Amino acid sequence: MKAIVVDAEWAPRPEAVIDPADAARRWAVNANQVYRSPKIEMTTIADPTGPGPKELIVQVGACGICGSDVHMYETDDLGYMLLPYHMRCPVVGGHEFAGTVVEIGSEVSDFKKGDLVTVEEIQWCGSCVACRGGYPNQCAHIEDLGFTIDGGFAEFVKVPEKACWSLNALLERYSDVETALEIGSMSEPTSVVYEGMFTRAGGFKPGGGVVVFGAGPIGLAACALARAAGASTVVCAETVPERRALAEACGADASVDPMAQNVADVVRERTHGRGASMIVEASGNFQAVMGSIEDCLGVGAKVAVVGMDARPATLNLIRHQLSAAAIYGTVGHCGGWNFPNVIALMASGRIEMEHAVTKRVGLDAMVRALAGTSDRKDGKILIKPGM
Amino acid sequence: MKAIVVDAEWAPRPEAVIDPADAARRWAVNANQVYRSPKIEMTTIADPTGPGPKELIVQVGACGICGSDVHMYETDDLGYMLLPYHMRCPVVGGHEFAGTVVEIGSEVSDFKKGDLVTVEEIQWCGSCVACRGGYPNQCAHIEDLGFTIDGGFAEFVKVPEKACWSLNALLERYSDVETALEIGSMSEPTSVVYEGMFTRAGGFKPGGGVVVFGAGPIGLAACALARAAGASTVVCAETVPERRALAEACGADASVDPMAQNVADVVRERTHGRGASMIVEASGNFQAVMGSIEDCLGVGAKVAVVGMDARPATLNLIRHQLSAAAIYGTVGHCGGWNFPNVIALMASGRIEMEHAVTKRVGLDAMVRALAGTSDRKDGKILIKPGM
Repeated sequence: MKAIVVDAEWAPRPEAVIDPADAARRWAVNANQVYRSPKIEMTTIADPTGPGPKELIVQVGACGICGSDVHMYETDDLGYMLLPYHMRCPVVGGHEFAGTVVEIGSEVSDFKKGDLVTVEEIQWCGSCVACRGGYPNQCAHIEDLGFTIDGGFAEFVKVPEKACWSLNALLERYSDVETALEIGSMSEPTSVVYEGMFTRAGGFKPGGGVVVFGAGPIGLAACALARAAGASTVVCAETVPERRALAEACGADASVDPMAQNVADVVRERTHGRGASMIVEASGNFQAVMGSIEDCLGVGAKVAVVGMDARPATLNLIRHQLSAAAIYGTVGHCGGWNFPNVIALMASGRIEMEHAVTKRVGLDAMVRALAGTSDRKDGKILIKPGM
Repeated sequence: MKAIVVDAEWAPRPEAVIDPADAARRWAVNANQVYRSPKIEMTTIADPTGPGPKELIVQVGACGICGSDVHMYETDDLGYMLLPYHMRCPVVGGHEFAGTVVEIGSEVSDFKKGDLVTVEEIQWCGSCVACRGGYPNQCAHIEDLGFTIDGGFAEFVKVPEKACWSLNALLERYSDVETALEIGSMSEPTSVVYEGMFTRAGGFKPGGGVVVFGAGPIGLAACALARAAGASTVVCAETVPERRALAEACGADASVDPMAQNVADVVRERTHGRGASMIVEASGNFQAVMGSIEDCLGVGAKVAVVGMDARPATLNLIRHQLSAAAIYGTVGHCGGWNFPNVIALMASGRIEMEHAVTKRVGLDAMVRALAGTSDRKDGKILIKPGM
């Protein structure tokens, strides 16, 4: 089958501390510390072999390009992948996908051939202390589809039943399978935001104002979710005009160029002086936005830090104290009823993630699409192996 | 009557932005920006005049010295008060007090002469947007006993009924009034920690490990509350040996000198590798402790930032993300059933704040006691106007 394979040179930085067992299997806790000179290309590999008893084979209908995929492609001055997350090369990339079940293992009980499914990227073990404690996103034996095990930039992918969520409900709203799978492929990034805003931070009260920093696909999902959850106003701060337009299409009431306008002024005006009830950091550039986030804090505000940024940032915590504000760190998408709630919001039309899609291309055009993301103008780019 | 009066020169820094209305009444939002060359001395002033309809006159039994009082006394290189909080000079200092009701206004219904009471420092208006929203500590028209209006370093103080909480229940445990008022005077600092740990951060689950950074009076109260609320282990990090001993007396299972030992190593050992469920910052030196706090984070940890520090600090938010951790900013003590719960914990002996007291002196020795705090060896110093 055709697949996009990510490979890179295992070359730990001199200062990197690597567990010998990880080194032996070339498993990076932080790709930026060890993987150099990445190569991403379409190639032909063997189809996945028959599923184990509790596994499924999924024919991929759509798989989105994520910021993490871009950070596998982009490198720093020394040639290391920018990605500060888990990685094991070579691997089939892609972790935001939806498809049709084409084969099921002998013990699969919740799915049948022909079902539409999306799949959790994070393969939590279910038996470590963190998993048993109710924190699957912090699994001690984590593996990630598209990062450490083969993912969805391929015609087929083999996945465990317990990672799958049914998308059949999307056919209530999107009558054709192709569209349902496009929308369904965005369950994963939307669930990442949902985990941050609702599961970790506990949501905001309907009527509050929400500010979203950054209008990449994560920020776009945040705008849609904030609108659906009853924000009285949703303000998105984003430097790229094309993305500001996408934010408004997805649910933002106003978008602001932070280089041209003071975000907090707009937020104070639109909340009649009260400030934000929730702020979603989705820019991945903490140092750049934190001062502006602090300017937007309303009394009792919650800051959900969803963007990923391994660099330190300067905070004025006294401002959070005086505002009775809280900062929630979040990563991942598992548990918390995240996926089923996101899918239900999509199926009912309460969020319309189709407005985030700016490109649809086949596997053979994936690498060109990836190279084209450097201007950060796109919303969600969907790779469709059937095209 | 005898009282401790704090005065200072109104001398706004050139860069300070001061509201003209505040300047006209010499009301500082941030004393460090405007009040220079403080003088604190015992003097004789008129007794409070007869109470208004909803006011009480309280004869002060005990009033604790707070870090804020120390920060009114201590100055920076340019001679400005260190205090980064509200101030209006001249004012009778003292805001952690308890006493006996000696006179009541015509409309007072919940108190009678002879009742033992403690008093909220924060005089919230009850009618601004923040108060009506349920956030009295963020009152837009805030006044503070001992900061902007006359407080408890005096023989008598006039206070509104709505700021008072009954301490009569303390006589269940402490049979003499004098001891009940000593313990009761610590309701205020203990409620400040309670607001942070339980009202803002929502507490920790019994069985979790708690780490407290700093063993000044606020940290000591945190140790006691953590123990009472079911922490399986309470670890206190503090550089001063005398204060480490106080922390253990108040409820810490272990105290650590962070200059000699890695705090996180101790926490990991005592929590069997799990890390802290709650971390209380009570050092007031964010930059110094934040890295160590991040080392202690358990999965799902909560960080309650209770110490006050106006300086920026560097955070590695990705560590909070990967741990699903949250940071709660907090200030004040009003609302949230804080005072009545703290008093009930004291009356039932679940917390024993008497272990935090290291000195008891009369009003005439208050300034000498204040000057003696520079070595940060004391726990709670109580000023007793009757001595």
